[in-house]
Amino acid sequence: MDISKFVELSLGKWRSQRSVHHLAFSHFEEVTSTIEITPLNKEDNEVIELCKSHKIDPQMATHPFRMSWEGESDWDDQATTFEGTTILVPIPDLNNSKAGRLLRDKGYAETIPSIGKYQITEDGTFVLLTEYEQAAAEEKIWFVNPNFRLRVSLIKTSLGTGVVTASFSSEIRSLSVNSET
Amino acid sequence: MDISKFVELSLGKWRSQRSVHHLAFSHFEEVTSTIEITPLNKEDNEVIELCKSHKIDPQMATHPFRMSWEGESDWDDQATTFEGTTILVPIPDLNNSKAGRLLRDKGYAETIPSIGKYQITEDGTFVLLTEYEQAAAEEKIWFVNPNFRLRVSLIKTSLGTGVVTASFSSEIRSLSVNSET
Repeated sequence: MDISKFVELSLGKWRSQRSVHHLAFSHFEEVTSTIEITPLNKEDNEVIELCKSHKIDPQMATHPFRMSWEGESDWDDQATTFEGTTILVPIPDLNNSKAGRLLRDKGYAETIPSIGKYQITEDGTFVLLTEYEQAAAEEKIWFVNPNFRLRVSLIKTSLGTGVVTASFSSEIRSLSVNSET
Repeated sequence: MDISKFVELSLGKWRSQRSVHHLAFSHFEEVTSTIEITPLNKEDNEVIELCKSHKIDPQMATHPFRMSWEGESDWDDQATTFEGTTILVPIPDLNNSKAGRLLRDKGYAETIPSIGKYQITEDGTFVLLTEYEQAAAEEKIWFVNPNFRLRVSLIKTSLGTGVVTASFSSEIRSLSVNSET
C-alpha cells in the first residue's frame, strides 16, 4: 500500500456512521453522513494555489483529491445538519514512498488550512498527524476490504498530552448506479 | 511491544465508552462499562484446566489474566445492564515473540470457549483473529499512552466476507486510590 493505491481505493461515494466519544464527560455523539471523494488534477488551479500557499512546487503533488460531505449529528440532543468540502494534496517524501505531507485547504479540527504528516504502516494503515495552534489531530484510516473502511481520529490538546475526543467512523462504499440515491 | 508488555500495560481498572455500529441498518448502540484486568498464575487451576481443554501444555502459557466487566447498554432503546468475566491465556509461538494463540474460556462473539490467533504489529497494535462456527471476530487494541487504550472490533459472517458490526471502545485507566469508586 502506498499513497497512490490508498487514494485510488478511497475515491467514490461513502455512507459513514461516526461515533464521537467526548472523553471528559463520557458523552456519545452520533453522526451519519455521506462522503464523496473525487480526483483532482495537479494542473487544477485550486491545487496549484494550495501548493503555492505552502511554498511547495505543485509538481511534487501526487493524486490530489476533493472530499465533500453532508450529514447529521445528534450533538446537544438535537439533530444538526452540516456539510463541507475540502481539497487534499499529498506531497510524498522524495526518499520514501510510504510517507509524506498532506496539504489541506481546511483543517480537520479547525477551519484553517493545515499541513499534516502521513505515513503508511506495514499493515496498510494510513496514519496522519496534524498540529494546529490549539490542538493536535491523529487519524488512522484502513480498509477492511475495498468497499469498507474504518477511521479512528483523536483530538488532543496542543501539548499533545491529553486526548479530548476519540472518534470512530465505519464507511461503506455506496454502490448505487445512480449516485444521487 | 511483545505480549508480556502488552498484558502488563493492560492490567488494572478501566472506564470504557463503546460504540457499536450495526451496519445493516445503520444503528448506533452505546455502551458504558468498567473493565478490570487482573493477573493470574500459570499454576492456577483455572488456567491449567483451560490449557488442558485445548490439549496445550500449561507451561507454554505466559501472562494469563482474568478480565471482568460490568456496564450498561442502550440496545433496543432501553438501558440494559450486563456483567461477565473470562479467563485469557496467551500461548506465544515458539519462534516468534510477537505472535501466538489466545485461549479464552468464553468467547467474544459467542459464549463458548474460543481460541484466537494474535500478532503484534510493528507499531504496537495487538491484532486478534478468532473464528467461531457462525462468525469470525477481528479485534485491534492499541495504547495511545499507558493510561488510554483504544479497541476496534469487527464481527464478520462465518465466511469472513460480510462485516456485521464494527465497534469502537475508548478506555481510560481508572486511577482512583479507592478501586470501588
